[in-house]
Amino acid sequence: MDELAERYLGRALSAWGLDVEYVRAEGDLMYLADDDGGQPAVTDFVGGFGSLFFGHNHPELVAHARSLLDAGTPSHAQLSQRTEAQRVASALNAITRRELDAGEPYEVVFANSGAEAVEAAMKHAELARVFRLGALTGELAERARAARAQVRSGEAALSPAAVELAGPGGDIDAVLEEAGRRNAEALGRAPEFFALEGGFHGKLVGSLQLTHNPTFRLPFQALGARARFVPADQPEDVLKYVEAEQPYVLDIVAEDGVVEVRRLAVPFVAGFVVEPIQGEGGINELTAQQAERISDVCRAVRCPLIVDEIQTGAGRTGSFFASSRIGLTGDYYTLAKSIGGGLAKTSMLLVRQSSYVKEFELLHSSTYAKDSFSCAVTEKVLEMLERDDGAAYRQAAERGTRLRRALEEVRAEFPDVVRRVRGRGLLLGFEFADQSASGSPMIRNYARSGFFGFAVSGFLLRKYGLRLMPTGSAPNTLRIQPSYAIDDAAIDRLAAGLHDICAVLRHQDALQLVHPLTAVETPAPRDDVWDFRSPEPPGPDAEPAAARVAFVAELGTPHALRRFDPSLAGLDDTTLRAFVARSAPVRAMAPLPPVRCRTTEGTTVEVTVFPLLVDETVGDGAGTLAADVAGQVGAAHATGHTTVVVSPALRRLTGTDAPTTGVRGPNGFQLPPGFGVDAEPALLPAELAEALRS
Amino acid sequence: MDELAERYLGRALSAWGLDVEYVRAEGDLMYLADDDGGQPAVTDFVGGFGSLFFGHNHPELVAHARSLLDAGTPSHAQLSQRTEAQRVASALNAITRRELDAGEPYEVVFANSGAEAVEAAMKHAELARVFRLGALTGELAERARAARAQVRSGEAALSPAAVELAGPGGDIDAVLEEAGRRNAEALGRAPEFFALEGGFHGKLVGSLQLTHNPTFRLPFQALGARARFVPADQPEDVLKYVEAEQPYVLDIVAEDGVVEVRRLAVPFVAGFVVEPIQGEGGINELTAQQAERISDVCRAVRCPLIVDEIQTGAGRTGSFFASSRIGLTGDYYTLAKSIGGGLAKTSMLLVRQSSYVKEFELLHSSTYAKDSFSCAVTEKVLEMLERDDGAAYRQAAERGTRLRRALEEVRAEFPDVVRRVRGRGLLLGFEFADQSASGSPMIRNYARSGFFGFAVSGFLLRKYGLRLMPTGSAPNTLRIQPSYAIDDAAIDRLAAGLHDICAVLRHQDALQLVHPLTAVETPAPRDDVWDFRSPEPPGPDAEPAAARVAFVAELGTPHALRRFDPSLAGLDDTTLRAFVARSAPVRAMAPLPPVRCRTTEGTTVEVTVFPLLVDETVGDGAGTLAADVAGQVGAAHATGHTTVVVSPALRRLTGTDAPTTGVRGPNGFQLPPGFGVDAEPALLPAELAEALRS
Repeated sequence: MDELAERYLGRALSAWGLDVEYVRAEGDLMYLADDDGGQPAVTDFVGGFGSLFFGHNHPELVAHARSLLDAGTPSHAQLSQRTEAQRVASALNAITRRELDAGEPYEVVFANSGAEAVEAAMKHAELARVFRLGALTGELAERARAARAQVRSGEAALSPAAVELAGPGGDIDAVLEEAGRRNAEALGRAPEFFALEGGFHGKLVGSLQLTHNPTFRLPFQALGARARFVPADQPEDVLKYVEAEQPYVLDIVAEDGVVEVRRLAVPFVAGFVVEPIQGEGGINELTAQQAERISDVCRAVRCPLIVDEIQTGAGRTGSFFASSRIGLTGDYYTLAKSIGGGLAKTSMLLVRQSSYVKEFELLHSSTYAKDSFSCAVTEKVLEMLERDDGAAYRQAAERGTRLRRALEEVRAEFPDVVRRVRGRGLLLGFEFADQSASGSPMIRNYARSGFFGFAVSGFLLRKYGLRLMPTGSAPNTLRIQPSYAIDDAAIDRLAAGLHDICAVLRHQDALQLVHPLTAVETPAPRDDVWDFRSPEPPGPDAEPAAARVAFVAELGTPHALRRFDPSLAGLDDTTLRAFVARSAPVRAMAPLPPVRCRTTEGTTVEVTVFPLLVDETVGDGAGTLAADVAGQVGAAHATGHTTVVVSPALRRLTGTDAPTTGVRGPNGFQLPPGFGVDAEPALLPAELAEALRS
Repeated sequence: MDELAERYLGRALSAWGLDVEYVRAEGDLMYLADDDGGQPAVTDFVGGFGSLFFGHNHPELVAHARSLLDAGTPSHAQLSQRTEAQRVASALNAITRRELDAGEPYEVVFANSGAEAVEAAMKHAELARVFRLGALTGELAERARAARAQVRSGEAALSPAAVELAGPGGDIDAVLEEAGRRNAEALGRAPEFFALEGGFHGKLVGSLQLTHNPTFRLPFQALGARARFVPADQPEDVLKYVEAEQPYVLDIVAEDGVVEVRRLAVPFVAGFVVEPIQGEGGINELTAQQAERISDVCRAVRCPLIVDEIQTGAGRTGSFFASSRIGLTGDYYTLAKSIGGGLAKTSMLLVRQSSYVKEFELLHSSTYAKDSFSCAVTEKVLEMLERDDGAAYRQAAERGTRLRRALEEVRAEFPDVVRRVRGRGLLLGFEFADQSASGSPMIRNYARSGFFGFAVSGFLLRKYGLRLMPTGSAPNTLRIQPSYAIDDAAIDRLAAGLHDICAVLRHQDALQLVHPLTAVETPAPRDDVWDFRSPEPPGPDAEPAAARVAFVAELGTPHALRRFDPSLAGLDDTTLRAFVARSAPVRAMAPLPPVRCRTTEGTTVEVTVFPLLVDETVGDGAGTLAADVAGQVGAAHATGHTTVVVSPALRRLTGTDAPTTGVRGPNGFQLPPGFGVDAEPALLPAELAEALRS
């Protein structure tokens, strides 16, 4: 079979040991297929990235879905009466009445995914703004007409300000023309949204602009209206920005016989979007005080407050809305993920009735949205949440407390390794301390390459049968969000796994981390964590170097790896080669600490190795070696290395005359120990020497 | 129950008699619930707006979906190996190999809706462009470095062009600084997409910008990168535009001892998106010749050709891709609708391997996408399409031919009423001739208000049990897209219904159109179509009018309606009141033909009535009367009426001092006959007279 559905992502998953295939799922368990026909279970703490409040394939929801299929539910009935949707809207309003301090109903618009709900929110907010602009334009035109008529009939005369606006010899027509010109510009000011640093609201063209993570956003910023990001604890920055940027129109008004020029502010802020608890941004809770200040800002700016409850809503934090816990009341809400019960792709935008623009319904639609299947599933989800006086919310809160206690216990034991446990209910984050200065070069590399959380997740999956993932924008934080039925045994298993990885990190014993990722079926040479703590080698001293040399070299022979990170000494050649082969999609390693070398001519050269986890016996497994070499060369250039040398082995492997650029420098120096050099001890220094000579 | 899910849309549907609730659907039939517990069937020619190639709830697909539910399929397994997705990608590639002339595989990215697939296409195209910009920037920097080095070492000198760029006394650094400044501006040029007039690609923030219909797009244009629309038969307009707009960077190159300044074009066109047959735009086929010219344009501009097969793909036109019939080969394809079999919300973006940017996989994702349930359903859809050597495609082609013949027969009988039958296979459009000059004021109003297609759809539903809808951007065209199993009897029923409505339109007998919309259970007073053909009353003659007066008036008493459109004479008061009540959400009628009146002072006044379909006995059913009055006043102002008078009845009904603005004019004239005046024959002229006096 061709592998044509995101194969590169698949290979990256393989590098972290996450390339397993699940064949069945129920509750908090997912099942793998093994070679013997068995189905080993994995306990899932990812929970469909927050979509599985009721767990995978909850029997009651599955039975309901099956009954909908049996009944031939008419899902594709756009532009007819859709009673299920009305029932969902009604049930949601029963909840908003109970939990929120809105004092009025919310109108509900349906979409298919969380990101689509955010797009609907953006469109609705912009439409409301455009309508305000339209009303403002109409008022200006009406007052301008009246002013012109009064001047013409001699009832009014121009004020000094109007005369100035008109210019030399200008009359009322000149006033209106100049005002019209300036007003068109002010009214044309591009709209802006405000969002919080660390926020995540989706990856479609519009919603992406509200997502803070620059990796996801920046490449696409030219496609959409930009958002402005502020820290959650400084929402008032928005006010300063608005004050500085505020465009004004000129309002030409005849009053008491005088035509005055007034200024009116143009609404250019379309909305302010917040998550009560940032999910993908690292599980960061908004405080009640921050929420209040954000609400104040929205009132001051007169823009709608859009509360994104896509991940936090539908019970996850022990109430329907996480925002209700901090007294935050939105003008808009977005819901998705768990609201579909893990079976329906559905989402909703709720808009406070007094903010609602009914024309939106004739402008926005979707073939798949508002379908009876999805709506009926959501109806059942709401019923399950609300039944028994909200027993599910209470259970989520209780399970969350139990889970958090377990995580806090691990943290108490490893305060050096665990930075914080964050979140509420069943949306928790477990943050590791930054490992980019670990004594283990291997662990250090995971941290610096940004893939630390994935490597840890691979370890927990392979060694403990636990499914976890880091949060996308905070790669040291594991997101922990199981179902409301997660049991004590599962929590204890998670605690044991986290305990183990913490010990590995504390003792800087990379073998424990690396071995499970190899997927080699031989058992690890040792199960116990050894102590490899050592300080990171010091950087170069202050003496200025005559040259800064970068050396792009392979680091992949078993022997070199063992020298690189002594904790790997216990792993045999087969295991280490398997590790190198799996790592091919993410083989570009972080640069090593620079080393000072004295040349035979007495000058000092600073050498930094930019390693690639590759070995000639493994070859170019991912087919991307040439690009990876070019990437490291580029990284070396970007960090001020004017001399960049590519090792002969990499040149051979890529079959190209890989770049050796800007070589200028004295001859003779020693290489830092332990990189690829072992394969060809004679060649490499000579190669470098030659490069430096030329 | 609160009605909080798009109630205004619901009321608009009610105005056209489309507010029915379907309780079950199978194949091409949808079932209504009636009061007696029965389930009358409606034949569905809307087909989920193109999502139901296999019909509603096809037994084989439902059985497959049920088996997936029974097996506990792990839908929420993001970031694991997803074999179903690989199988779908593989099966799609088997089809692209057979049908397309691409010569290479397509990589597949999954999303949840058609619009999401378009957004993915836009993001991918922009990422590819950004990567090209990055490579260009890198090359410029490298050549600039080399040039600087050569000048400094005395190996090269500035050319005259470089000296000019540097400015007086400038050296190589000044050259590079000025080039850098200009290049930053050129590289920062906003990207643009090209799209065809009439195209529809979705309504999310990004995809909406590619959708031509200004009603949908313009309110939101500030949210996204703009697209440029060209007619399908003039794609070369793009080339002229690009030539005029092309930004260039300055490339500073040292060659043969001279530093030259060269110009390099900056890629600013991200892509060109087309539908092989425009669906929502009115069922417009792209010709093979147009397709070839568009392909040529893309090659010339070096931008990817994005073929949107969301509605046309997956068999609808008798082959998998509609584009393959016209020799159009895209760099990207989008698929949705029928690819989900009517059960799964899923969509795909296909990108030609040589155009694919693998980094996209790490930047773009969706919680719901690529799920095993949807992928397994799509796998089954592809299997059903491909089995028996493509029998389903052949059946679609055969049914399409049969259907088209029936439509063409109606057209042959009513060439005065039916403008064209368009499309291919099971994606057909039935276009009525414009009725905005119909002799029937009622029919004329439907046409001018833009709701003609909905009124016709309501008629066909209520009288013939046929579900049809107009295309969104071409309101005179019915979209006809049943399943591949549509039977002869259903086609004959459709032909009968269309025959009847054509007779109604030809004879301008609005009663036949209005009665079914009233939902009054009494039978129509007559079943046969009477002939009410009469020319539209002539507009005002050329004599200049002293004043143009607009009169916003109610037109809703049974008596007034019968005078308004004589074909309604057979309808009793109850029926006509029911009609007025249902029409409340769309009661703003198109302005009537202006009437010239001679005043007592001998001047000529042109009076235009802006009617609202409202009556005091019905009242403000939609709760929007004040806004509707304001809307008509605004429309009157916008069309140059400086005198606008609102009738006393409307003022009373809205309880406001409705605007009577800009009144200037001579006294005394006659009202055009037949509008609201009957209720208060004495009052209205006096009111108008008074307004004109003041």
